[in-house]
Amino acid sequence: MVKVCPDALESFFVSVFEAEGFSGAQSREIADVLLTADLFGIESHGAQRLMYYHQNIASGSVSVGSELEILSETPVSALIDGHFGMGQCVSVFAMRLAIEKAKQSGVGLVSVRNSSHFGIAGYYTRMALQEGLAAFAMTNTGPIMVPTFGAQMMLGTNPIAFAMPADPYPLWFDASTTVVTLGKVELYSKLGRQMPNGWVIDAEGREMPDAARANSSILNGEPGGILPLGGAGELNSGHKGYGLALMVEALTGVLSGGLISPEMEGPHGDHTAHFFMAFDPAMFGEPAQIRARLSEYLCMLRESDKLPGQSRIYTPGEKAWSHMKLCEKAGIRIDDATWTEMNTIAQMLNVDMPAVMA
Amino acid sequence: MVKVCPDALESFFVSVFEAEGFSGAQSREIADVLLTADLFGIESHGAQRLMYYHQNIASGSVSVGSELEILSETPVSALIDGHFGMGQCVSVFAMRLAIEKAKQSGVGLVSVRNSSHFGIAGYYTRMALQEGLAAFAMTNTGPIMVPTFGAQMMLGTNPIAFAMPADPYPLWFDASTTVVTLGKVELYSKLGRQMPNGWVIDAEGREMPDAARANSSILNGEPGGILPLGGAGELNSGHKGYGLALMVEALTGVLSGGLISPEMEGPHGDHTAHFFMAFDPAMFGEPAQIRARLSEYLCMLRESDKLPGQSRIYTPGEKAWSHMKLCEKAGIRIDDATWTEMNTIAQMLNVDMPAVMA
Repeated sequence: MVKVCPDALESFFVSVFEAEGFSGAQSREIADVLLTADLFGIESHGAQRLMYYHQNIASGSVSVGSELEILSETPVSALIDGHFGMGQCVSVFAMRLAIEKAKQSGVGLVSVRNSSHFGIAGYYTRMALQEGLAAFAMTNTGPIMVPTFGAQMMLGTNPIAFAMPADPYPLWFDASTTVVTLGKVELYSKLGRQMPNGWVIDAEGREMPDAARANSSILNGEPGGILPLGGAGELNSGHKGYGLALMVEALTGVLSGGLISPEMEGPHGDHTAHFFMAFDPAMFGEPAQIRARLSEYLCMLRESDKLPGQSRIYTPGEKAWSHMKLCEKAGIRIDDATWTEMNTIAQMLNVDMPAVMA
Repeated sequence: MVKVCPDALESFFVSVFEAEGFSGAQSREIADVLLTADLFGIESHGAQRLMYYHQNIASGSVSVGSELEILSETPVSALIDGHFGMGQCVSVFAMRLAIEKAKQSGVGLVSVRNSSHFGIAGYYTRMALQEGLAAFAMTNTGPIMVPTFGAQMMLGTNPIAFAMPADPYPLWFDASTTVVTLGKVELYSKLGRQMPNGWVIDAEGREMPDAARANSSILNGEPGGILPLGGAGELNSGHKGYGLALMVEALTGVLSGGLISPEMEGPHGDHTAHFFMAFDPAMFGEPAQIRARLSEYLCMLRESDKLPGQSRIYTPGEKAWSHMKLCEKAGIRIDDATWTEMNTIAQMLNVDMPAVMA
């Protein structure tokens, strides 16, 4: 485990993507998405994803030189073809467009096809927060989720991100519609831990507590897969998680004319589709009042009665903001495996490693 | 158990609400929402809710003579004050406005405060389907859900409905963000059945399998409550269900300047707030192509590999549409308790009961 200063890590990310062939501006966009994930404590989507992106670029699955294209546009909408560019660059452009439309017309809906893995969905809703707007961001991914009663992976991780301004933290929700992400399965596999019931089933519908076996089964596209939020069957409402995932699929792959999850190769999916929406709360009232009202409710929640043994109730986004404050002072922790991967990439691309903090 | 013809049940509903003091047009709106719930097999929101509405009207919690008011409007949005009118009339008006704006401007967002229980959220998304549009509908309710790690009911049932046109059934998703609705707890209580783990906890966080006790505890606003989708704690992602419920609360009670769940009395909540959104898929491509593509994906899901012992994979809305086809031919079944309540209301209001089918 090492610690690095956020600025040093960001510079490293920028240098890596410049060395991969992206422009300075593009590299800074990608770097900021990765850095935000590490600052927010979503380690699976920060430095740990560098090797994955490197491999996608090397294989040509992500196209370095391609330029995205606006296929159609109205005052409240746009359809974008990412032409298989880096998901972060495509998505920053798409969300900026949604924000622009929301500022001009009150709301902006942007549909994106032929993109690639875009990092954390919540990065894009946070862009809207910085402009005082509320926002949604969604993406499909390669297949990892079995539908309720199904044995075949037919849907992706399919996260829903939603954000709305509040103080001292915004309401910042970003969650997959699976019960857990593949990253969680990988983590349990890496730590050699057994998974609890209700996460992954095999082809027969039996629990698969062996994380290493589950991970390789999913990577190989074998029958069985991760369960939807709510778990197996309908008793604890697994059909709701499945339905939410399908909603995301309809708003991304279907609406954009792109690929749907089962058409993609590999669990992350190489040619993903996204949906972004920003809107101005000012259409419905005085923005400062709406913000104060949401802040008041979030505070009520945090201060409401806890269960025995629990000291805190969190509101969505609170953990991320606290983690960011901590990292800004104390640096970002990077685990040994990720540090080794960063070294490998640094050597391949002839880039300096970030300095280690004392 | 009796069976009635859908037309006869609808006429009965209309007569009841006319006798309550609503206009013919308003009564037909309310009747259609209730009838749709019964046709879709969502019995808890059909004839079974008549007594609840009657009591709300009698107590003055729902105002019969009030008129809703459009407080502000843009080409893509509106803010409505329902002035405590009947939720169905307020919401049909609000969704019509969202549809009109979607047809004119591509998208319409309508925020509603000071309404009342509006029936099934999916009724309103279905209105948009009939115009070839996609739509969202959400509402808050009185407090029934505990936040993750919390012992106090701070959020409502808070359903999310989403619909998008497809054949032979649309994608029609309508689900609470609690693991189960209060109606399910009531049903188990009525049947004297024990509830499975993961539905309701008491003040100490212990499972409450006794449905009758859980039901009265929730109705009395005692500590403990229904768990969010995903269950207790964070292990199986109960924080995601909690976050989705909070998203709904932000888009309804907060955005509209209305009440938030913990400010409402009783589990259903008498002064609820709603959010409606309709948008035209034509902004993103040829509507017939998008519809065909979604239909193709839904078909792939239904035909994908099943787990051993399972004969079908359903897509959201399929059960409702199948139930409707069945009821149109074979009539709507009404359980004895509901039939008795209907009789009581019919006598009080001097209205004829619907004819029973052979």
